[in-house]
Amino acid sequence: ATTRIFGQARFTCLILFYVLFYGTYLVSGALVFSALEAPIENQIRLDLIRAKQDFLVRHPDVLDDDLESLLDEVVRASNHGVSASRNVTGGPNWSFGQSLFFSSTVVTTIGYGHVTPLSQPGKLFCMIYALLGIPLTLVLLSALVERLLLPATALLRSLNAALGHLYRPFTIRLVHLTIIVTTFLVFFLVVPAGIFAYLEPEWDFLDSFYYCFISLTTVGLGDYIPGDSPGQPYRPFYKIATIFYLITGLTFLMLTLTVFYDIPQLNLSSVFSSIKLDED
Amino acid sequence: ATTRIFGQARFTCLILFYVLFYGTYLVSGALVFSALEAPIENQIRLDLIRAKQDFLVRHPDVLDDDLESLLDEVVRASNHGVSASRNVTGGPNWSFGQSLFFSSTVVTTIGYGHVTPLSQPGKLFCMIYALLGIPLTLVLLSALVERLLLPATALLRSLNAALGHLYRPFTIRLVHLTIIVTTFLVFFLVVPAGIFAYLEPEWDFLDSFYYCFISLTTVGLGDYIPGDSPGQPYRPFYKIATIFYLITGLTFLMLTLTVFYDIPQLNLSSVFSSIKLDED
Ligand SMILES: [K+]
Ligand SMILES: [K+]
Repeated sequence: ATTRIFGQARFTCLILFYVLFYGTYLVSGALVFSALEAPIENQIRLDLIRAKQDFLVRHPDVLDDDLESLLDEVVRASNHGVSASRNVTGGPNWSFGQSLFFSSTVVTTIGYGHVTPLSQPGKLFCMIYALLGIPLTLVLLSALVERLLLPATALLRSLNAALGHLYRPFTIRLVHLTIIVTTFLVFFLVVPAGIFAYLEPEWDFLDSFYYCFISLTTVGLGDYIPGDSPGQPYRPFYKIATIFYLITGLTFLMLTLTVFYDIPQLNLSSVFSSIKLDED
Repeated sequence: ATTRIFGQARFTCLILFYVLFYGTYLVSGALVFSALEAPIENQIRLDLIRAKQDFLVRHPDVLDDDLESLLDEVVRASNHGVSASRNVTGGPNWSFGQSLFFSSTVVTTIGYGHVTPLSQPGKLFCMIYALLGIPLTLVLLSALVERLLLPATALLRSLNAALGHLYRPFTIRLVHLTIIVTTFLVFFLVVPAGIFAYLEPEWDFLDSFYYCFISLTTVGLGDYIPGDSPGQPYRPFYKIATIFYLITGLTFLMLTLTVFYDIPQLNLSSVFSSIKLDED
């Protein structure tokens, strides 16, 4: 019993060290983001103040407060996903296509949040919808991964048959993992990024790649949303194709992680457990 | 071999049926969201158009195009997280506290996106930061869950000792699960929702609950962000307390799910696998 409690104490201590390391990681990130982004933010703020002042100079009869109250309304509407800009002819936010896109991004936990429910019933429904939808999505993705593991395992068997007499099993599993990771990188990041960069008038390749990466990791910052530029043709089809891309991309990412974790030597998540077991 | 291929075909068929069901779930969600939200969106749009028209009527010398170009600038800045409203005195977006909040929400995949990197180096760094940070977070959460499983398992042992002669093991595990789920609901949803509703001037209890729910499911729509109202005191402390809440909340949610999945009768994710095994 003493050894077990001693083991528990060491485990707790190890976690505290990790928390310290993790805190440092967060703080370092904050410092880098702050250093990279603060100047751009200042520039936007200065440009905006200048634009307001210029407008007031051009129109001396406009009272400062009067303009401010209009801008307040514009900012509030913008925060609710309604743009005051005449150039934005992207159609309503809660059209069927957009609503389907919203539903899909909630249940996959991507949650771009470029449009969000504003009514109390809408928020309530959103919670219930996520509560049921997230597990349903996990079951779908697991089933698809299970299905894709059949060809993936067949590939590993062929590799073993072809290379088994030349290399160690661990090496062959690394080759197998490399094939799957490369397939993911090419067909679910690089190629889609190229397609989005081609279809979206204002996205360069880095923007598109960043969109794909931030979406498939389910972070979903929502600063880039496909199919929201004015005058894009086939918008509903484009939205549905994007939903299809996101779900297949998430599936293939899960497959890649499953193949990765199946290699015992690479299974990071067991690091703490194994240390704990050593202590027991 | 024939049975195996037959089994595979049935498995594939079953997945196709599930995909159909899942598609129906998405479409139904879209219809409900659209019905609930479209009227409110229309109202906001109409109010905005009226506010613009009123302004132009009050100031006949202001040209429509001149106002539009100012509003374009305001909307663009607003999309980049910079508000034109004089009332927003929340300090810069990329202050240290805000940047720390951003870093935390990226690595936990919550990704509110109320502020996002605008520079190319910022986007690149964000991807690398997420690529390392998300696994680091998973390791942290797993280790914390592992640690919390020690008292959770001790509780199950006590329940078994106290009630083992009265009830079946499955019933006792349900009691155990209920205790943990209730603890989660009370201390990580209801109590925090009450605190946020108290601290945030514009949030009612439903808004706060919705914020907590959408955050802990890692959807992170970003329509509600704590500590962004003007004039809130102790802002950096508030932001750090929120980060602490989010990480402990995610940990306790993972613990709850682990306890849930540990009960074989409730393990949904094995539904498809078990059907597949039956076929083999
Ligand atoms: K998210
Ligand atoms: K998000």
